[in-house]
Amino acid sequence: MAEVVQFGHGRMPARPSLDNLMALVAADLSKVNRSILERMQSRVVLIPQLAGHLIAAGGKRIRPLLTLASARMCGYRGERHIQLAAAVEFIHTATLLHDDVVDESSLRRGNATANVLWGNKASVLVGDFLFTRAFQLMVEDGSLGVLHILANASAVITEGEVLQLQTANDTATTEDAYLEVISAKTAALFAAACRVGAVVASRPKAEETALDSYGRNLGIAFQLVDDALDYSARQAELGKTVGDDFREGKITLPVLLAYRRGDADERAFWRRCLQRMRQEPDDLNQATRLLARHHAIADTLERARYYGAMARDALAIFPEHACKSALDEVIDFCVARAH
Amino acid sequence: MAEVVQFGHGRMPARPSLDNLMALVAADLSKVNRSILERMQSRVVLIPQLAGHLIAAGGKRIRPLLTLASARMCGYRGERHIQLAAAVEFIHTATLLHDDVVDESSLRRGNATANVLWGNKASVLVGDFLFTRAFQLMVEDGSLGVLHILANASAVITEGEVLQLQTANDTATTEDAYLEVISAKTAALFAAACRVGAVVASRPKAEETALDSYGRNLGIAFQLVDDALDYSARQAELGKTVGDDFREGKITLPVLLAYRRGDADERAFWRRCLQRMRQEPDDLNQATRLLARHHAIADTLERARYYGAMARDALAIFPEHACKSALDEVIDFCVARAH
Repeated sequence: MAEVVQFGHGRMPARPSLDNLMALVAADLSKVNRSILERMQSRVVLIPQLAGHLIAAGGKRIRPLLTLASARMCGYRGERHIQLAAAVEFIHTATLLHDDVVDESSLRRGNATANVLWGNKASVLVGDFLFTRAFQLMVEDGSLGVLHILANASAVITEGEVLQLQTANDTATTEDAYLEVISAKTAALFAAACRVGAVVASRPKAEETALDSYGRNLGIAFQLVDDALDYSARQAELGKTVGDDFREGKITLPVLLAYRRGDADERAFWRRCLQRMRQEPDDLNQATRLLARHHAIADTLERARYYGAMARDALAIFPEHACKSALDEVIDFCVARAH
Repeated sequence: MAEVVQFGHGRMPARPSLDNLMALVAADLSKVNRSILERMQSRVVLIPQLAGHLIAAGGKRIRPLLTLASARMCGYRGERHIQLAAAVEFIHTATLLHDDVVDESSLRRGNATANVLWGNKASVLVGDFLFTRAFQLMVEDGSLGVLHILANASAVITEGEVLQLQTANDTATTEDAYLEVISAKTAALFAAACRVGAVVASRPKAEETALDSYGRNLGIAFQLVDDALDYSARQAELGKTVGDDFREGKITLPVLLAYRRGDADERAFWRRCLQRMRQEPDDLNQATRLLARHHAIADTLERARYYGAMARDALAIFPEHACKSALDEVIDFCVARAH
């Protein structure tokens, strides 16, 4: 993204980042981190060990950041958003633990995955624990409105995960079905994380739905870029193994586009690799060549920009605010990390 | 149990059963079953397929029955307990799906387990879905008091599952540690299922805690008997494979007792089989002989009767009621199924 955006505090970074957002909610974020560390404790030592491995590896904390900034943009001055942001991160962490078991992944955020270090069983059960801990945090908050949003989002996420499993290895998956999966498994939590900000601030329904829409479209853009990066990022930047999706036979948008645009031989190649899972050493390179030939990565990123634009428009109803500019920059950050 | 108990409606069954309880809440139970079938639906067909396999196999529905009878005994006349009983059964079903993955079990309720039929991945994700569905049902109910009880119980259950994994294959496990595991993984949900009955009926705290105590002690007795049955039941009756716990290296009370009471050779046997997991064809028979020599099964059942007696005493504060007699009989049923 080459466009120059004017940020709240006057800096013009060469490259969009989460820095402005993190600076704005730095005090809140360190409280969230403290809450996460406190509430993942248990006298069952395997729980903080395993959860801490993933949490300390430090993802971007993008979902809790969205909750914090949304609440502040809505004028919220209390502390409830801290614990709810921690709950959102716990839900996310639980799904990561289970995803890595389901995908048989070995690398996450640049480290060996918990399932590799402690085994699948521990990852499944500690994931369950974090899920239930998230619900405890939400119940402690005591707002049925918030509980509704996050319980529904959790059900949609898990439904999306099953749908993804059900359509795995199926090259006949349509782009619609793919969008349905990522809307559920990724975008639903982004949407809920943002919406909660308007709820704690007791803002009108229109602002709730605007933040929901911002989060949902941002989440779709985020996942589209993630799926593109899986074929194109340098490993050190991505923090996961390039080609994971290919090796797991995941049917993501880049593959869907290349499959549809390819000739009979190319389709046979994709079916052999991703449907029958017969892969040979040079196949990932061949896949990358086919993706390039059909502009599949470029077009996936183009679609990501389209959802990013919808996220941006959703923010329009909010008045000027440093957090609004920062949330706007998050969109560029999510899309730009692919370049 | 040879004692003759006078039941509410005058029958004196030769053998304690759940029949009286089921007859008393038959109308409620069929509503619970309808609610379960309705709420396990999803446009993602794998979800009702897999969940339906386990749910249709029809466990005893003992946990939702406890919620129904507790509520009615407390004089509740509404319908909230229906949906909450369904939520309780969903939590239980979710833990069963994950347990079978973790234990690598192949038989449950007389049928092949979901992990055998659909694979571990599907069992993990559909378990997650049922967990989140349970929370949705609880949130729809709209009582923060109920949410508190069931969210806390869920966290305790998952913590107990991790504790069990952490102490697996450790013959040095103490009886206290074993009791801690079964209190968490089994008794916490029994306690919550009963307690919720008093909450929906808006009964005083003393009745809440009495039902909590009844459920908790009943749950411990239930699990003790389960662990005894694993070495002694006929397969057709148990609906699971005899010796599962032995093959998985689970350290249950029968084993703890036999290990402590055994000589050096016998301890070496248990360590080889359950700690180093080196098992040979005749080992299960040898284990059964050692359990008999040290009265380990009989003493496990003796302890179950002790917890059963505490459960019975906890009910004492409630006035005469057909549901009270039925809940009393549940204790005998849980203990008697071992004979």
